[in-house]
Amino acid sequence: MSASHPSDQDRNESLPGEAAARRVVLSVDAMGGDRGPATVVAGISRSARKNPDIDFILHGPKDELDRLIARKRGLAGRVTVRDASDVVTMHDKPSQVVRHGKSTSMWSALDAVRDGEAEVCVSCGNTGALMALSMMRLRKLPGVNRPAIAVLWPSRNPQGFNVMLDVGADIRADEKDLLQYALMGASYARNGMNLARPRIGLLNVGTEEHKGRPELKVAHELISEAAEQANFEYVGFVEGGDIPGDRCDVIVTDGFTGNVALKTGEGTASLIGDLLKEAFKYSPLSRFAAVLALTSLRRLQKRIDPRRVNGGVFLGLNGPVVKSHGSADAMGVSAAVKLAYQLAASGFQEKIAARVASAVSLAQDAAERGTETE
Amino acid sequence: MSASHPSDQDRNESLPGEAAARRVVLSVDAMGGDRGPATVVAGISRSARKNPDIDFILHGPKDELDRLIARKRGLAGRVTVRDASDVVTMHDKPSQVVRHGKSTSMWSALDAVRDGEAEVCVSCGNTGALMALSMMRLRKLPGVNRPAIAVLWPSRNPQGFNVMLDVGADIRADEKDLLQYALMGASYARNGMNLARPRIGLLNVGTEEHKGRPELKVAHELISEAAEQANFEYVGFVEGGDIPGDRCDVIVTDGFTGNVALKTGEGTASLIGDLLKEAFKYSPLSRFAAVLALTSLRRLQKRIDPRRVNGGVFLGLNGPVVKSHGSADAMGVSAAVKLAYQLAASGFQEKIAARVASAVSLAQDAAERGTETE
Repeated sequence: MSASHPSDQDRNESLPGEAAARRVVLSVDAMGGDRGPATVVAGISRSARKNPDIDFILHGPKDELDRLIARKRGLAGRVTVRDASDVVTMHDKPSQVVRHGKSTSMWSALDAVRDGEAEVCVSCGNTGALMALSMMRLRKLPGVNRPAIAVLWPSRNPQGFNVMLDVGADIRADEKDLLQYALMGASYARNGMNLARPRIGLLNVGTEEHKGRPELKVAHELISEAAEQANFEYVGFVEGGDIPGDRCDVIVTDGFTGNVALKTGEGTASLIGDLLKEAFKYSPLSRFAAVLALTSLRRLQKRIDPRRVNGGVFLGLNGPVVKSHGSADAMGVSAAVKLAYQLAASGFQEKIAARVASAVSLAQDAAERGTETE
Repeated sequence: MSASHPSDQDRNESLPGEAAARRVVLSVDAMGGDRGPATVVAGISRSARKNPDIDFILHGPKDELDRLIARKRGLAGRVTVRDASDVVTMHDKPSQVVRHGKSTSMWSALDAVRDGEAEVCVSCGNTGALMALSMMRLRKLPGVNRPAIAVLWPSRNPQGFNVMLDVGADIRADEKDLLQYALMGASYARNGMNLARPRIGLLNVGTEEHKGRPELKVAHELISEAAEQANFEYVGFVEGGDIPGDRCDVIVTDGFTGNVALKTGEGTASLIGDLLKEAFKYSPLSRFAAVLALTSLRRLQKRIDPRRVNGGVFLGLNGPVVKSHGSADAMGVSAAVKLAYQLAASGFQEKIAARVASAVSLAQDAAERGTETE
């Protein structure tokens, strides 16, 4: 996240759960990440030190969490532990978790948002199960057909990152879903990245209007018509190369294509990183050069480090959910917490709800017109 | 292309057009590339020097081409020029080229393959027009419903590259098309990359069997059943991260997803390259380190240089067509020519035709069974 941190706000001394103006309570699932609860506690401890305005409700086995928290100075008095004995693993099927997951930390973490005790939920757990459970416990926002997962992607834009959605909440998306992704993505870019008037692009295999699948052509019309009222700029069709580019700030696509693009980009970046390391190990001279180049290489790594932008956000539910990488370390968890805080502090949830609600009738009208003019 | 070059073959003195055992005639469109015909002539001159077994039929304005060829030593006697006054530009619509493009160099280049004068066609021109014209002039192979464009992609595999198809010949692909892509991709990997038993993966949003769109589940069954008879290994569903990975050698997907993945990967690699340059310009020390690191960085660049793997191949037609990047320089054109030569020398066209033909009835049976077991 390159967005500036709203650290100048007055500290408000209200207690967790009161949802006061400037104090933020986040609900954090301590379990389900690859590195276990110690890493999650280290991550929230890092966030707590940096930001005095956050309190936490932490979900998992109480005895273990209490021990971990006691070891971290500065967490005392800022974390409420909710005992949950079960854990959703990476191998659990979403359908099973929805049916039998009531005693899991993930379920408990979502319920704290559902019950208004916390503003945003953060979890490192199984994405499919988290989405299924989020839909069940938080329910979809009125007017939203398919929720979406939005991620940040390193780009050539001044803010350093672009938003892409959906990256896998649902493999299908019709023209109305794509319009809603545009509305939700614009709202997210405004509140999560401080972009007053984000530029939206619709992912396609070419920029010409006649290209692509039928639903893309209709979505193209719908998004174009919604742009002014929803306060974003629509740049039209964009291509895969624009995901890390500077033509737009938000890339809208279906969850199948978005998921493949995300993983292709990650895989390509990782391959290049490994080849770079290999190249520098080639000879004594290249190893010497690598030592001198270390700061430069670190600067590059920092710029594209996935831990700095850790956190897919589930949009379109009654409460935002930040999905951290399963393999996140303490720095990664802290980045996800920072994103969750930024969303809460900006009043994102109210804004996106209002935006979607006001767009529902508009979208309905536009969709009907769009179909007629096809 | 990391595949070894069959340079040990005896030179055969037969004339162009006689299609003798070891002498290969390639049909090259001199026009339509961003850098003009001088670059194409420089490219084929490079190839001609390296490989005495290739002759060329070159298509474009005769006077200009004759002048360019006269300036290159070693091309004399190895290039036949076919006069074509018109050029297909990057902005021409495929449908217009198909209707009115008879006097273009692209049309002429394809007809030399159609008429059996040359074995493979090479063009740097407009992809959409080249595909439309290829379908019209060369016709689809019996049993092929949708031709595909296959590209090579830098990967962690020993051969250095993976094959991905389709990357944009057609944005739709049903289960039978995906099966044909698997058959054609396997044949291409065997003949273009010397992999005796290529490993095929079907691109999806997860590796579990229950994931993905309905046509993917059926294609999963069809490809699995065809594997043994068609002499490839089927590794099942793969994800975006496997495109540059080492789980498989050939990635099968529809043209929409493949096109987005290709461009996302290219865009990400290009962003990282630029950020790397930036990082090394940061301070006098980092600039000094960059000088020392130059050989290492060049080694990396060579490894992922798109010019070395220049050439999408159109598969599923009566004659292979190699599509070079529009922006290819002489080295890029030469790489495309090398790929075209390798395909011709390996007898690729006969093999892929036989493979598809023998698979047609098999596929038909399997598709019916696949649908029944859905």
